[in-house]
Amino acid sequence: MRLASLARGGRDGALAIVSADGTRMLDATRTAPTLQAALDAWDSAENALHRQAESAGAPDAWQPAHHGAVLAPLPRAWQWLDASAFPSHGALMDKVIGVVPQRRAAPLMYQGMSDRFYGPTEEILFPSEDLGIDFEGEFGVIVDKVPMGITADAAMQHIKLVVLINDWSLRALAGPEMKTGFGWVQAKPASSMAPFAVTPDELGAHWADGRVHLNLAVDWNGERFGRAHGGDMEYGFHQLIAHAARTRELCAGTIIGSGTVSNANFREVGSSCIAERRGIEIVDEGAARTGFMRFGDRVRMEAFADDGRSVFGAIDQLVVRG
Amino acid sequence: MRLASLARGGRDGALAIVSADGTRMLDATRTAPTLQAALDAWDSAENALHRQAESAGAPDAWQPAHHGAVLAPLPRAWQWLDASAFPSHGALMDKVIGVVPQRRAAPLMYQGMSDRFYGPTEEILFPSEDLGIDFEGEFGVIVDKVPMGITADAAMQHIKLVVLINDWSLRALAGPEMKTGFGWVQAKPASSMAPFAVTPDELGAHWADGRVHLNLAVDWNGERFGRAHGGDMEYGFHQLIAHAARTRELCAGTIIGSGTVSNANFREVGSSCIAERRGIEIVDEGAARTGFMRFGDRVRMEAFADDGRSVFGAIDQLVVRG
Repeated sequence: MRLASLARGGRDGALAIVSADGTRMLDATRTAPTLQAALDAWDSAENALHRQAESAGAPDAWQPAHHGAVLAPLPRAWQWLDASAFPSHGALMDKVIGVVPQRRAAPLMYQGMSDRFYGPTEEILFPSEDLGIDFEGEFGVIVDKVPMGITADAAMQHIKLVVLINDWSLRALAGPEMKTGFGWVQAKPASSMAPFAVTPDELGAHWADGRVHLNLAVDWNGERFGRAHGGDMEYGFHQLIAHAARTRELCAGTIIGSGTVSNANFREVGSSCIAERRGIEIVDEGAARTGFMRFGDRVRMEAFADDGRSVFGAIDQLVVRG
Repeated sequence: MRLASLARGGRDGALAIVSADGTRMLDATRTAPTLQAALDAWDSAENALHRQAESAGAPDAWQPAHHGAVLAPLPRAWQWLDASAFPSHGALMDKVIGVVPQRRAAPLMYQGMSDRFYGPTEEILFPSEDLGIDFEGEFGVIVDKVPMGITADAAMQHIKLVVLINDWSLRALAGPEMKTGFGWVQAKPASSMAPFAVTPDELGAHWADGRVHLNLAVDWNGERFGRAHGGDMEYGFHQLIAHAARTRELCAGTIIGSGTVSNANFREVGSSCIAERRGIEIVDEGAARTGFMRFGDRVRMEAFADDGRSVFGAIDQLVVRG
């Protein structure tokens, strides 16, 4: 099942079920008004959503899906925890930022701002191009309530939805904030989400070992930028959840991110953020050549299943002066 | 005006107005169901709350205030950003944690978990005493919606409420997480709040320069531990807000923390967290002598105005095995 949040009602939107081909939507607010409400009682909500979809008749009678009329699946969340689980990304970022985090036998993870997630086609406002505006394509999962101290194995059952995220980053601010040890505030403004949140079973063989086995297609100003594969995470999402829940209960609707999708053969597949390409240039040519985003630039992100379907729908966004 | 959230209704509680002497409460849900709802439209809500209090008659007819029946003023918030604005605290923490953050001409601030704030007398569950369980007494402010790029001067007008916070910290995990540069996740579980959120005008002369000019009374297991003064912040709350809003809009209901209240004459006034006392012992005696909290320990925090009133009410909590 795939779910979306229509841009009407309150700030959390109105829950809708998405047809298999992604072209139609069914208002699901009689089952749960919002995606957060569904996540608060997921097991019963999921069953009820399936029943509603079955009883609604053929999807060709549902309303047409206009992506401009959808918000992020969770337009705001109570918690957003983002990891950095792709080793090839981490190694390249050390070169770009000039700060080498002390690594240990545990995932890298930070607490991100969660009070706003941009919808898939919203314009993105930043105060200056000098901040080093960068996209970061990644996969994420949304959980129901997770008890403190859960094991990674048990955490797998709490993964209810999979999403595609663009974690906007301001690279000029990232290094100085890392050096404080306090993590990022200014360098990590609101992120964006693709329109559809997808149950793991809907992914079929593309979901295995707590990882999303799909290529992440990233295009910058209409040119192919990256097609990295989501399967290379050092820690699966279930392990990231167990890490996050070591000393806290996770509320229903907590979003856990993979960090920038990256593969060791980055010269072939490309990257999911500009900073990583700059890291490759530093390795290969001694200096970074590619600049960060300018006002008027666009970035598009999408992931296609073997049958050609755009699993999460597309993020397609314009960066403008704020 | 002082506000509280009664422990009934949904997870966000039910808004109540607190009498001047703190012994009575008036159900305010007909004006705004929750404190978050009031913050979403603060200017009109504040006026309406004043009118409701005036028309309700003498407070001695209001319902008695039972602190056990209140939640945190915001039992969950969309955003919690905590600073470390007291220089004497920072200097001592460097010695305890063994990590010296690279300081710069900007506040230290991290993004904290906001999906849960413990009420003032809730029991606090942790999985192990070995995590270095510590309290951190601090003041905080709650803002209405703040635009991106606001100046510190303009930010002052967005400070709508002042609160007292115990920012629970797990010291054994703090150093390793700082060294990643990603900031704290496991070391910073949910914080607690004292029962009353207070408008700045209610503080009178105790509110000046964006700082809370009150001593923070901290007792550990019934013994006096600290009476540090809130006026020594290197950056006022208005400056902390401007820092936080450099690259993002702050949503209504964002909570900004001062960091542990601390004074340079810490040998006289004591401390607001155990780690700081351990830092003093390292300076004075070459090694830390005081251990962290054990299961069964209590901590109490309160701040008294010149007229003897307990401004925010008391945090009084027991730590237990989770």
